[in-house]
Amino acid sequence: MELDFIRKLVKPAKTKIVLLIMDGIGGLPRELDNLTELEGANTPNLDMLAKKGICGLQQPVGPGITPGSGPGHLGVFGYDPVKYQVGRGVLAALGIGFDLQSGDVAARGNFCTIDENGNITDRRAGRIATEFNQKLCKLLQEKINIPGVDVFVKTVKEHRFLLVLRGRNLSGEILDTDPQETGKKPFSARVKKDEANHTAELVDNFLDQARQILQNEHPANMVLLRGFSERPNWPTYEEVFGIKSAAIAAYPMYKGVAKLIGMNVLETGSTIEEEFSTLEDNWNDYDFFYLHVKKTDSAGEDGDFDRKVSIIEKTDKEIPRLLDLNPDVIIVTGDHSTPALMKAHSWHPVPTLLFSKNCRPDKVDSFGERACITGGLGPRFPAVDLIPLALANAERIEKFGA
Amino acid sequence: MELDFIRKLVKPAKTKIVLLIMDGIGGLPRELDNLTELEGANTPNLDMLAKKGICGLQQPVGPGITPGSGPGHLGVFGYDPVKYQVGRGVLAALGIGFDLQSGDVAARGNFCTIDENGNITDRRAGRIATEFNQKLCKLLQEKINIPGVDVFVKTVKEHRFLLVLRGRNLSGEILDTDPQETGKKPFSARVKKDEANHTAELVDNFLDQARQILQNEHPANMVLLRGFSERPNWPTYEEVFGIKSAAIAAYPMYKGVAKLIGMNVLETGSTIEEEFSTLEDNWNDYDFFYLHVKKTDSAGEDGDFDRKVSIIEKTDKEIPRLLDLNPDVIIVTGDHSTPALMKAHSWHPVPTLLFSKNCRPDKVDSFGERACITGGLGPRFPAVDLIPLALANAERIEKFGA
Repeated sequence: MELDFIRKLVKPAKTKIVLLIMDGIGGLPRELDNLTELEGANTPNLDMLAKKGICGLQQPVGPGITPGSGPGHLGVFGYDPVKYQVGRGVLAALGIGFDLQSGDVAARGNFCTIDENGNITDRRAGRIATEFNQKLCKLLQEKINIPGVDVFVKTVKEHRFLLVLRGRNLSGEILDTDPQETGKKPFSARVKKDEANHTAELVDNFLDQARQILQNEHPANMVLLRGFSERPNWPTYEEVFGIKSAAIAAYPMYKGVAKLIGMNVLETGSTIEEEFSTLEDNWNDYDFFYLHVKKTDSAGEDGDFDRKVSIIEKTDKEIPRLLDLNPDVIIVTGDHSTPALMKAHSWHPVPTLLFSKNCRPDKVDSFGERACITGGLGPRFPAVDLIPLALANAERIEKFGA
Repeated sequence: MELDFIRKLVKPAKTKIVLLIMDGIGGLPRELDNLTELEGANTPNLDMLAKKGICGLQQPVGPGITPGSGPGHLGVFGYDPVKYQVGRGVLAALGIGFDLQSGDVAARGNFCTIDENGNITDRRAGRIATEFNQKLCKLLQEKINIPGVDVFVKTVKEHRFLLVLRGRNLSGEILDTDPQETGKKPFSARVKKDEANHTAELVDNFLDQARQILQNEHPANMVLLRGFSERPNWPTYEEVFGIKSAAIAAYPMYKGVAKLIGMNVLETGSTIEEEFSTLEDNWNDYDFFYLHVKKTDSAGEDGDFDRKVSIIEKTDKEIPRLLDLNPDVIIVTGDHSTPALMKAHSWHPVPTLLFSKNCRPDKVDSFGERACITGGLGPRFPAVDLIPLALANAERIEKFGA
């Protein structure tokens, strides 16, 4: 369904919805006991919700597609990630918590090494230390001056940085300056569309100045720019779903994605307990809460099966605090799977439960990958179905047609 | 998902995928034991793959739609058969193994009977014997001469033949010459679009000559042409999925469909054992193998329940040879169901298993229609999901978004 279709049917209500995203929650069974992280974890509270609620497994983007954090979240938030694509420059800005404004153009930067002829000898400048990167970004930030635009140069990590241009009539329709191989010169800024001609001039100006400023900073004596993109102007949660929404997340990327769709990002401590406290403290002020647990994913990425289990169990222990608030709808899911066995995000569908007094329970009586297969939500349903279902359960969608 | 979306995410790998299509594999339970052909067959190897893999039932085209062989295969191959439609003339060419070239226009022909006024008295010329058809096609092939184009007239069966025009600037946008009822004259070639004006003249020239040549061949003294169509120019498997693919199929239709999407059609013997030998012999040269077992469908069409069971069992016996090759991903499915009880293709979803070391197993422990319903792939999933899932399991799809 298109967002425009839902938008016409939403109606106000006093109900409250909580979306708990356990990052990378889905897993794969290990040989020891043939159980996944979630199946093996002791989760009496999540099991109770699964038993009383309706379960299934969702695909954030589509069959076989491994979602990055941005698309994974957008899918669960109800925004089709294939339609609502985020540029890589914008993702980089979100990733370090840069507060992108409407109209800003962002690009991912690499420090690189060039020889006396200007040809690239190392596209990553020997992966310089982050501290060196910080020194160089400070230098560029201080010295570069482009009339009419604000320039932001921010360290990401090692050789990677973020460039943001802020001004009038900017466009992200610019090709990468990175030729993707050594022995070649960096490209100057080439436009994809004529509307970007002015921006391309500004980028070339930036590149000229950067070359001058960095000339004695070998191996980081030049920069490459990729993924030029503008902050998107998408319909907000309030516009589409008619709800006042709040995000409780400790890491920049997740705050950033929430901001893109107009969620209010709440100040919070970073532990699971502190995030639930933030939920309690702000309970009266919003209709919808997105609460993000990061460390399930980090443990999965590290290949630490047991740590992922223990973070799931830790999250489960906080569920009674959520229930004490008496929310009308609770969704528990992830933005993708991160099986500890793969040490990476994966395409496997994500276990999901939806609990509300209005839902039609299925026969699933525990929260786990294989249990969810036979749940009422289906074994591979599109993640974008979740928010409309949550709104319906929260009595926030009108009848369609007489 | 659109093919263009997948195309941007595929990445190279050394992995190998085998797609085993048992034609018409799906069935219906007979009264004797309430088991379908597949449920009743003794298939220890397929059951083992189902147990270790992930199962479900797919719909090649859509709910309630009975696929022909062309659309059924295209769906499983990952090409939405509603979007990628094959003209009937082209299907006829594929069916007899005619090697269509890009730009060729093909039509299905009928020999028919006309009276002295030129009105049709029998649209099928009394279903003349195939031998008579062959004589007439030879006659037309020898005598018809249209400057600037090559004309091919090929026997199909009984009253049916294939016409192909090969030349420059041809178009398939021409309406049927068959008025679909007796007592009327055949239409001349009428265009759907102006671009076909030149082709229509050539077709009229063909019809005039055919009328002359056949005038004494009663009851086959005229022809009707239908389903004009051009060989489609679709993106190939290599272009879209980044894989080098091979087709192992003994019958013309299946080789033809494979060719349409750029698969390399391997020379093979026609028995199941010989097809598996062809697989072994070519194992090192391709990333992807489509292996087609025809006789499950033929038995279904004949209403021969027991023969269909025995062909399933025969195929099962070859599975260990497949496993010895150690493929990274195996898919076993069909292009549609052909229940022996119906003696025809049907709309019923097709049992499917996907086996790989990266798949998340479900609780299905045997390969059969009812067992697959509770599988992780879902009970009625779109066939086009299969190849993206296979590519993901073969580690050939990049993460989407950071």
